[in-house]
Amino acid sequence: MIRILAFPALLPLAGRIAGLSHGRAEPIDIHRFPDGESLVTLHRDLAGQDVAMLATLNDPDHLALPLRFAAETARELGARSVGLIAPYLAYMRQDRRFSPGQAVSAPLFARFLEESFDWLVTADPHLHRIHSLSELYKIPAHRIETAPLLAEWISANVPDAVLLGPDSESRQWVAQVARLADRPFEVLEKHRSGDRDVVVSVPQSEALLAGTPVILDDIASSGRTLIQAIERLRTAGARPPVCLVIHAVFAGNAHADILAAGAARVVTTDSIPHVTNAISLAGVLSAACREMLDSEVKP
Amino acid sequence: MIRILAFPALLPLAGRIAGLSHGRAEPIDIHRFPDGESLVTLHRDLAGQDVAMLATLNDPDHLALPLRFAAETARELGARSVGLIAPYLAYMRQDRRFSPGQAVSAPLFARFLEESFDWLVTADPHLHRIHSLSELYKIPAHRIETAPLLAEWISANVPDAVLLGPDSESRQWVAQVARLADRPFEVLEKHRSGDRDVVVSVPQSEALLAGTPVILDDIASSGRTLIQAIERLRTAGARPPVCLVIHAVFAGNAHADILAAGAARVVTTDSIPHVTNAISLAGVLSAACREMLDSEVKP
Repeated sequence: MIRILAFPALLPLAGRIAGLSHGRAEPIDIHRFPDGESLVTLHRDLAGQDVAMLATLNDPDHLALPLRFAAETARELGARSVGLIAPYLAYMRQDRRFSPGQAVSAPLFARFLEESFDWLVTADPHLHRIHSLSELYKIPAHRIETAPLLAEWISANVPDAVLLGPDSESRQWVAQVARLADRPFEVLEKHRSGDRDVVVSVPQSEALLAGTPVILDDIASSGRTLIQAIERLRTAGARPPVCLVIHAVFAGNAHADILAAGAARVVTTDSIPHVTNAISLAGVLSAACREMLDSEVKP
Repeated sequence: MIRILAFPALLPLAGRIAGLSHGRAEPIDIHRFPDGESLVTLHRDLAGQDVAMLATLNDPDHLALPLRFAAETARELGARSVGLIAPYLAYMRQDRRFSPGQAVSAPLFARFLEESFDWLVTADPHLHRIHSLSELYKIPAHRIETAPLLAEWISANVPDAVLLGPDSESRQWVAQVARLADRPFEVLEKHRSGDRDVVVSVPQSEALLAGTPVILDDIASSGRTLIQAIERLRTAGARPPVCLVIHAVFAGNAHADILAAGAARVVTTDSIPHVTNAISLAGVLSAACREMLDSEVKP
């Protein structure tokens, strides 16, 4: 029986994964002292057990040490294996030195996680220049694909959807979701000139004006891409769009800003707990987790 | 020539250490993205160089990954050795499991630092149950003693000082400072019942009422210990005390609260940058750093 250990915010998702895995969900307590240190506590005997820690890494610097402490403590308490389910995985962008002297954080973060975990399961990480997790991770690492879940949600909720990809890099992914949902799609042109400065242009399209635009994005952080796309769609005379996002990072007021810009609705998966979560990854995470244990951990 | 690399807040101290070490101080740039990730950049060629990173660890969880990224990047850029000067060292308290399932963070944090650094220099860490850094650290680790600097400051600034130790554990340390300053001392009784709840009692003492009380503490975090001591001293009819603290952690409003309670003055070392810094560790840190390089690193 797998033990799914989670920090408080992810306990509900841990419960759903455990329910589907014939496992048990248990809390990882975290206490933050006034001086900035953390005290992590696990609550059950783990001797001989297979453990999966569930932790979403949208605030990676803050969570790194507590996560390390939790994993090492599970081992000290006798766990047979310790894996990591990170529905949102951090540090997937900086895979090379874009300027001299820059830290190449993607492989350094991978090494950091490998020091503590036997395997990794994540949901559609930001694979831009890195095309496969195995390029980065030496431990068994499995990426679950959210495209079928997104397509299912679109079919059930937006029958007249016209899908919109945020940039040319997303073309293949958006085409896949569109094919699964049996709906048309277009791709926006995106030019980025800083963390928060994005310029987006909308294609001329009859289909776009006839249906309900559904803008897809893998991550919404500052929300600038979505906001620009919404504004351009309004200018083009399209209906208020639905924003369908895998990972609800939403820095600062991003969510409110997206709604204020004119989105009909913002929908996300539960990879990061947020009020917009409407698509649960519990089933696919549970399946991936069982697969990991069957193939990689059991003697 | 040693290269002292520091995050922005510690660049002034890095400059003073470098000046005393015939070294060079250089910034470690850190950029925080809206999604919580960090980008760390080093700025100079480090091929074949001995590097010391200067980082104070009063917010350890937040700094851990950027520090790891900086150290590993220095190695990738060819540094011959990479040491750590951490004037304030974190995670020195949790050296055992006080309740079942707790993470024992002191050795886990030590392992984390050892993975990236060849040596460690720190100033009077909180050695409570851990009596020597070598019990925790397998890399060469040197603790500089601040007692002579504190005594020197007292002699120069509070000629009628009566030293007060915060609790019985501090007796040996306070006695040492008192001997070096050639002044009398007393020790408070302290009872702790939580992170922020402290009860302190002041001894009956003629000397205490005749001189200026100087309350010594190694760390001021919530400030509760100092505030209670100040209040008890006022009740006992003593003069407004000077608070002399090694590490200015000062969580939240602690500094203002200590002044409001009636402290004549709050004085700290520059182990953590703060407006109360009046005693510089640059000289002793520089000496310890040169000693490390001479004894441990050079072939």
